[in-house]
Amino acid sequence: MEFLVRSENRLPPDTPDERRAELKAAERARAIQLRERGILKRLWRVPGRNATVGLYEADDPAQLHEALMSLPLSPWLDVTVEALATHPQESGA
Amino acid sequence: MEFLVRSENRLPPDTPDERRAELKAAERARAIQLRERGILKRLWRVPGRNATVGLYEADDPAQLHEALMSLPLSPWLDVTVEALATHPQESGA
Amino acid sequence: MEFLVRSENRLPPDTPDERRAELKAAERARAIQLRERGILKRLWRVPGRNATVGLYEADDPAQLHEALMSLPLSPWLDVTVEALATHPQESGA
Amino acid sequence: MEFLVRSENRLPPDTPDERRAELKAAERARAIQLRERGILKRLWRVPGRNATVGLYEADDPAQLHEALMSLPLSPWLDVTVEALATHPQESGA
Amino acid sequence: MEFLVRSENRLPPDTPDERRAELKAAERARAIQLRERGILKRLWRVPGRNATVGLYEADDPAQLHEALMSLPLSPWLDVTVEALATHPQESGA
Amino acid sequence: MEFLVRSENRLPPDTPDERRAELKAAERARAIQLRERGILKRLWRVPGRNATVGLYEADDPAQLHEALMSLPLSPWLDVTVEALATHPQESGA
Amino acid sequence: MEFLVRSENRLPPDTPDERRAELKAAERARAIQLRERGILKRLWRVPGRNATVGLYEADDPAQLHEALMSLPLSPWLDVTVEALATHPQESGA
Amino acid sequence: MEFLVRSENRLPPDTPDERRAELKAAERARAIQLRERGILKRLWRVPGRNATVGLYEADDPAQLHEALMSLPLSPWLDVTVEALATHPQESGA
Amino acid sequence: MEFLVRSENRLPPDTPDERRAELKAAERARAIQLRERGILKRLWRVPGRNATVGLYEADDPAQLHEALMSLPLSPWLDVTVEALATHPQESGA
Amino acid sequence: MEFLVRSENRLPPDTPDERRAELKAAERARAIQLRERGILKRLWRVPGRNATVGLYEADDPAQLHEALMSLPLSPWLDVTVEALATHPQESGA
Repeated sequence: MEFLVRSENRLPPDTPDERRAELKAAERARAIQLRERGILKRLWRVPGRNATVGLYEADDPAQLHEALMSLPLSPWLDVTVEALATHPQESGA
Repeated sequence: MEFLVRSENRLPPDTPDERRAELKAAERARAIQLRERGILKRLWRVPGRNATVGLYEADDPAQLHEALMSLPLSPWLDVTVEALATHPQESGA
Repeated sequence: MEFLVRSENRLPPDTPDERRAELKAAERARAIQLRERGILKRLWRVPGRNATVGLYEADDPAQLHEALMSLPLSPWLDVTVEALATHPQESGA
Repeated sequence: MEFLVRSENRLPPDTPDERRAELKAAERARAIQLRERGILKRLWRVPGRNATVGLYEADDPAQLHEALMSLPLSPWLDVTVEALATHPQESGA
Repeated sequence: MEFLVRSENRLPPDTPDERRAELKAAERARAIQLRERGILKRLWRVPGRNATVGLYEADDPAQLHEALMSLPLSPWLDVTVEALATHPQESGA
Repeated sequence: MEFLVRSENRLPPDTPDERRAELKAAERARAIQLRERGILKRLWRVPGRNATVGLYEADDPAQLHEALMSLPLSPWLDVTVEALATHPQESGA
Repeated sequence: MEFLVRSENRLPPDTPDERRAELKAAERARAIQLRERGILKRLWRVPGRNATVGLYEADDPAQLHEALMSLPLSPWLDVTVEALATHPQESGA
Repeated sequence: MEFLVRSENRLPPDTPDERRAELKAAERARAIQLRERGILKRLWRVPGRNATVGLYEADDPAQLHEALMSLPLSPWLDVTVEALATHPQESGA
Repeated sequence: MEFLVRSENRLPPDTPDERRAELKAAERARAIQLRERGILKRLWRVPGRNATVGLYEADDPAQLHEALMSLPLSPWLDVTVEALATHPQESGA
Repeated sequence: MEFLVRSENRLPPDTPDERRAELKAAERARAIQLRERGILKRLWRVPGRNATVGLYEADDPAQLHEALMSLPLSPWLDVTVEALATHPQESGA
């Protein structure tokens, strides 16, 4: 099942550059793994914000939760999740 | 997977009593079916309101959607759904 | 560019069934055209609601506006649009 | 009587791991006690968030308040409580 | 246990005066009964609005719900209920 | 005239226990004085929160303001005040 | 004591012109009386809206309520009242 | 001085086409006059909605109010106005 | 033109008393100057809060902005401004 | 395409003056570059706030995002972006 995931990054602006770069690299590496496992399907930037909208696919909310919590930035992310149902139009129904 | 479902009944106050009784009886019958199928697990009243909070279980959001739309009052219900993940504490994990 | 489009259907519950079916069929036909033109890319149901979330692609907000207003149900839709930017991760950047 | 309890954990992200683990273990121990006393009946995770939804049963709001304040994490929890009334459908009424 | 009950009266402005007077008299009679039974303890007007704040006492949310739904104006009232816990200061604790 | 006063206590969770106890005792002492002067009439806890709802009586908003600002915790309280009018039902009118 | 009163006029757009003019004239006449009695002190238009902000002075919220309810348009007004305290700066304190 | 004006058109969806066309033509004619007088400077559509954002210039809020109320659709428009101050950067200050 | 100005003081509760007194005195001195220049016309306290509502008069939003930013507490004030239009009733129109 | 960009500056009030001046100068320099590139078209101050509303033009949300993130103050800015469509009235259509 698919989920729309909105994520605001609340990492404090005064985080040292090195720490920030480190976290960003780790985040990116983990995101690539989630893509490879088919959990992260699309990712957009919310223009002007340090925020993203993502389309995720997971077996259930528990698996999604685990995936999101495995992101190195997760302690600073303010995340909201919306479970969606594929529209019958999609399958030509 | 479980869902918390909040439902506000917007049936107009000037609905004729007969129509109202008819809808209520049909709603109740359908709710009993959903209970028997294990989809509707708990139902509460929001005190003071013509509204309910329900705990539902469904295979996915699409099945939940179908179940909710099968309720005779659904055209008048303002429904919000929240997908929940069982907490590891529940399983003694 | 891509847009996330949230759409609540406010068609009154007392709309005659025939009119409702007619509008639904016309809506579906138009949606298929928008898919074929590559404007409507994905469509989800918001479980429990007469509402959808869609992923659209258009040259600009004006083209998107035209596409959305061409939907037969548009007079009854309460639509909110969010312009998104593809995340650099998507392109492997 | 039953209460729906939503709880956001505001423990600062920079809390040392040891302190965090200690608090989490104590929280878990206390939650088990509340389960054994029949006060905490169900607990869910809000996917993507450091937050829970719980179903509690208590004699009255004062007893519920005491139970919630006895949780070791309570100084960092942002809690909202909703008193619910069992729906007559539940009892077959 | 005590509840704070906020109630907005949505009776349409074009309700005939006679119907309005009838409902108001019935509402008042029922409110007096609720006072006599000790359920309605205090009632305030929200200045400038056709709205009230009330302090109610009931055994549980279900009894409160029944009391509120017994008000003749209840089909037009938009009610929100907040369960309160007596503060230990009250009892000199 | 009466006021409904909602008060959220924002004292930081990491306030030393001694300081917290000191402030709580002073708050309690001042609250008793306000009760004796007839300004504080009722006080409730909002279950699950470090928050209260109070019923106050004062000559005017200025006197109420002074009373609320005299509370030792006032620098950390987020207070909202609602002026209420006694309902004619109260006086048997 | 003074009150800031925000008032949105919800008179339906399809109200016949004659009825509208009649109500407007009556509203104006009553407002003049409230000015003469010193209850209505200032009145502003919220630009672009059929809405006003007013500064009222009354003995208490009950008197204010009566004054506001005496306005011929009151059944269609959505009013919010805020009780204010004169700032000590005003009196040179 | 400049104002940002957001305007939602609440004309009912079941307005007859002829009436709608008539109002739209009159609205357009009046908007052209406001442009010629330098009051309406820019106008945008909010994509997906029957709504606009406009940049207006007027001597004061009263003149702006008059201009907005002169629009034939004004009885159905839900308008919010924000007064803006030119930023010193604009003038090279 | 007149503006309604709502101002919440976010000066941290742990600001040293001396610094607080200093800022308050400077704020008061500046406010008196704004009164003398006819910019600050009325000032109220929001009961229970470290907040004010003020009625200001300025040539335009830019002059108002300058006046508000000249207040010594301005770095800690969360200010919202509403431009108002004198109601025709005021001038006997 | 054009975007309306609202930006709240959350730079902490206790930022040293020198650092603040430095950031402000760099912000101004970058803003001038964005003007010269035609990306920043208009900029307004929100009166009373450390906030701006800007009218931007960019090829797409990604280019806008880059431009906004290039502002030296961007780590402290809380930005919301609204994509707008030129109204047909603008082109005389």
